[in-house]
Amino acid sequence: MAALAGLSAATLLPVNLIAETAVSPSIEQNTRSGFDKQEILSVAGKVADWQIKEFPNNKYAISEPKGWIAGALYLGMYDWAELCGDTQYFDWLKKVFNRQHWQVADRMYHADDICVSQTYLDMYNKYKEEKMLLPTLARIDWVINNPSKGGLDIDYSKPVTYERWSWCDALFMAPAVYTRLYTLTGNKKYMMFADTEFKATYNHLYDKDEKLFFRDSRYFGQKEANGKKVFWGRGNGWVIGGLAEILKTLPVDDTEYRPFYLQLFQEISERLAGLQSKDGYWHASLLDPESYPSPETSATGFIVYGLAYGVNQGYLPADKYLPVIEKGWKALVSAVEPDGKLGWVQPVGADPRKVTRDMTELYGTGAFLMAACEIYNFNK
Amino acid sequence: MAALAGLSAATLLPVNLIAETAVSPSIEQNTRSGFDKQEILSVAGKVADWQIKEFPNNKYAISEPKGWIAGALYLGMYDWAELCGDTQYFDWLKKVFNRQHWQVADRMYHADDICVSQTYLDMYNKYKEEKMLLPTLARIDWVINNPSKGGLDIDYSKPVTYERWSWCDALFMAPAVYTRLYTLTGNKKYMMFADTEFKATYNHLYDKDEKLFFRDSRYFGQKEANGKKVFWGRGNGWVIGGLAEILKTLPVDDTEYRPFYLQLFQEISERLAGLQSKDGYWHASLLDPESYPSPETSATGFIVYGLAYGVNQGYLPADKYLPVIEKGWKALVSAVEPDGKLGWVQPVGADPRKVTRDMTELYGTGAFLMAACEIYNFNK
Amino acid sequence: MAALAGLSAATLLPVNLIAETAVSPSIEQNTRSGFDKQEILSVAGKVADWQIKEFPNNKYAISEPKGWIAGALYLGMYDWAELCGDTQYFDWLKKVFNRQHWQVADRMYHADDICVSQTYLDMYNKYKEEKMLLPTLARIDWVINNPSKGGLDIDYSKPVTYERWSWCDALFMAPAVYTRLYTLTGNKKYMMFADTEFKATYNHLYDKDEKLFFRDSRYFGQKEANGKKVFWGRGNGWVIGGLAEILKTLPVDDTEYRPFYLQLFQEISERLAGLQSKDGYWHASLLDPESYPSPETSATGFIVYGLAYGVNQGYLPADKYLPVIEKGWKALVSAVEPDGKLGWVQPVGADPRKVTRDMTELYGTGAFLMAACEIYNFNK
Repeated sequence: MAALAGLSAATLLPVNLIAETAVSPSIEQNTRSGFDKQEILSVAGKVADWQIKEFPNNKYAISEPKGWIAGALYLGMYDWAELCGDTQYFDWLKKVFNRQHWQVADRMYHADDICVSQTYLDMYNKYKEEKMLLPTLARIDWVINNPSKGGLDIDYSKPVTYERWSWCDALFMAPAVYTRLYTLTGNKKYMMFADTEFKATYNHLYDKDEKLFFRDSRYFGQKEANGKKVFWGRGNGWVIGGLAEILKTLPVDDTEYRPFYLQLFQEISERLAGLQSKDGYWHASLLDPESYPSPETSATGFIVYGLAYGVNQGYLPADKYLPVIEKGWKALVSAVEPDGKLGWVQPVGADPRKVTRDMTELYGTGAFLMAACEIYNFNK
Repeated sequence: MAALAGLSAATLLPVNLIAETAVSPSIEQNTRSGFDKQEILSVAGKVADWQIKEFPNNKYAISEPKGWIAGALYLGMYDWAELCGDTQYFDWLKKVFNRQHWQVADRMYHADDICVSQTYLDMYNKYKEEKMLLPTLARIDWVINNPSKGGLDIDYSKPVTYERWSWCDALFMAPAVYTRLYTLTGNKKYMMFADTEFKATYNHLYDKDEKLFFRDSRYFGQKEANGKKVFWGRGNGWVIGGLAEILKTLPVDDTEYRPFYLQLFQEISERLAGLQSKDGYWHASLLDPESYPSPETSATGFIVYGLAYGVNQGYLPADKYLPVIEKGWKALVSAVEPDGKLGWVQPVGADPRKVTRDMTELYGTGAFLMAACEIYNFNK
Repeated sequence: MAALAGLSAATLLPVNLIAETAVSPSIEQNTRSGFDKQEILSVAGKVADWQIKEFPNNKYAISEPKGWIAGALYLGMYDWAELCGDTQYFDWLKKVFNRQHWQVADRMYHADDICVSQTYLDMYNKYKEEKMLLPTLARIDWVINNPSKGGLDIDYSKPVTYERWSWCDALFMAPAVYTRLYTLTGNKKYMMFADTEFKATYNHLYDKDEKLFFRDSRYFGQKEANGKKVFWGRGNGWVIGGLAEILKTLPVDDTEYRPFYLQLFQEISERLAGLQSKDGYWHASLLDPESYPSPETSATGFIVYGLAYGVNQGYLPADKYLPVIEKGWKALVSAVEPDGKLGWVQPVGADPRKVTRDMTELYGTGAFLMAACEIYNFNK
């Protein structure tokens, strides 16, 4: 998504970071060599159009149009709509959202069920129509006033297992709804709640040695075939993407919350950049890519998006990260079929497993579009 | 639905009414002559079972399982589950409701979108599981704290047309959600809101000369072929059914609100009893049945339900109303196919129009079951 | 205050702590030698009665009967009422509280202005009269829904200086209002808010090397005459007393929040025990008692209360802490005049300074009574 109107996180940055961004010769260099704006527009438009055409037949679009799977697509489609300037994409979002009355999904506490609100709120920020805001506000206010008593361990014998942010994907789905509401309303309660919950998850799932997030408590202590710990590619993609959304949508004048999220973003960015495979992809298992050799474009899309956002904001040094981003972007583009279908997307499910070229999912397209739009804005 | 646990509205009645009910020879007489309990069980069971079997293929059950169409069915199915004592019907309700997470439908203000909560709350009252209550409470609390700025005239150029109870059906859909919450929580805010809104609708749509409700403002001043005003059969069925639900679910010790609703219930009951056709049905147009000669079992079902409830509570004199109820019930039963399908149900739509024997709808079944259960309880 | 009905925090303790308490010979010994229950009753009763007699003439009782100064007295008086079993003390609290309609003080965010709610809630827990609860609930719900945007540094140029818990006294005034509401309502929002705010203050004011709290940010870097850092006696008394109230009033089955508060309580208890002067008192400046040689019975009262509570719960080992408590209690008793007036109370003001025997304040009496009641319950 685009930063909320009027926000420019860069104004908060230490001067050395801003300067680095502003004059970085490495961006210019890499932009000239690695990124062709027309090519980005062309492939992103093709991917967006293919997805819109296929949307009515997508099983998740039919059964869960307010769910997280479609939710991640809407975020990418919004970015693309902003970038390309063609109102048909906003019109498509409006049509889909009007049909579901800008409503969140059913489960009162589930992070997945408010992912869609991120795009609702971006649309509200743009169009200022109350209907785009109210259902989200009603849900979030209720949750804050009636917080779940659930815990953070995954325990399927309990009905409340997914009432807290007990799996790392949740850090993409939910927190940036709260940061947006904080910015839109000025009411700090949204941020107090989200910050408390985010840190509870961070303390629970973040491995400070490996600088990666476990998917959930069931993976503590498990090992891959090569003896390494189990860290899921897309799972950590959700986290870096979620951190980018949080940083984008915090109030521009916030200095209380930004440092923690920025520090974590930089830390996990550095770790993830070091785990890219030679083929440019991140794989389903981050520490055992050889056991999961298939390309995985959803993990790769979210990670490239996060890194590109970081470079654009001056949060990450361009000379170090641009080569990683360039290799990742080329890998993503190579997974796009001539008709615009993005392949090699790991299907829904918590575990790393086999992925094939014909597999696609809405969130893969979402991540691809988010990445494309950030990269386009290099050297803006 | 059954009155909330422990409630017995009769305890509030004037002594003479209770006495009349308790000893009424006319009930005994009519029960013996007109109603056979085994026959009621048999036909109601057949109707319920047919509907459950057909439910997965019903277009509204598929597209709007949280909507008013299914919502009216759930109310009847709950009554039937209570009456017949077979847990399979409660199990069916639980299965359907768990699938939709006990959630209300999408539109924040629309009366139709909380009809389903009436049965959720009856289930909560029975099983005391918080999940059955919370989504309803969240919606209603939000509406009370953020009331619609919409008006009561139907104006499709405005997005807020159905945010108030601006059509008479709404008096069935919404108010008895609020009365139930008042009884469950003891918090008067629920009743203050519902009573204020109900009276606004009453002042807007009730024709005090005809003692009937217009469907909505578009029918003011319109005339049927015979020159009479346009009063819709099922529309007024919704009202009498809704009044029965309100009276059933008000707190047993309430004396502040009951008189108004009781008086209106008695007034409209008397008027409707006088409009029954010789064939036992009420027709799509109450004042011009000859222009709409088809049987109409949804109007008839809700009206019979309301009158039977009134007699059971001693709100209506049995000797006067039992013949009407008996004739109506026989008409309803005659519309049931051998397999349990209820026919002659006017489809979804605001206007009176032609109905045929093969037409059925979920709310028709709901009304039939509600009527059957009240009649069964005569002379209990 | 007494623990909320039915709570026994001891049930959560590690077995070794419980065992230690249960069999501690040192308690028996010290009880026999150092504490005479009749003497405790006698002196506490005299102190309570003197204060009630003088209350109508006390300037703070007249000008701020809902403020923190009187608030700390009410807490001690409630404990005394529970202990002595004479209903006149509860009647006195009711008379005072009815006169002020169980209302909190004026400032929406100020911690001082809800201290009084701790006793209101204890009374509500005992008498279950809604009037005792509602004004507190209204204030706290509002604060949670509209959290202050103030910071934690003391800056008199900003109007929001005391909107957060930016001075250590606040940790006595406010958090245990929230823990009580969490226990009374079961709604976790109270604890999420209080825990977040407490930890913000802890991170801001707690000196992890010295294991003491600065009074507020103005004292960072200041030095006493002897070159030591400035840690205020009563200020740290407020903290240990506040921690005791938090631990007392958390839900008995809570395991999420208790560990942090228990660990901090044990840490600060150990540090404070080591800072007692030979005369049994703690002085206005904890690290430079020689520059502030006067006895100071408010600091001493709260610290003795906290330590005695810790021993009673098995949170602190009796053999180590009972000698400290005994010496402290003797010092407190020696400050009581024959008529029951407690002397040597440092007056209102943030800074350590000269105290004399004729000085008394309501909170001094409150602390004295709280300490007396905990000590009475040794070896219960």
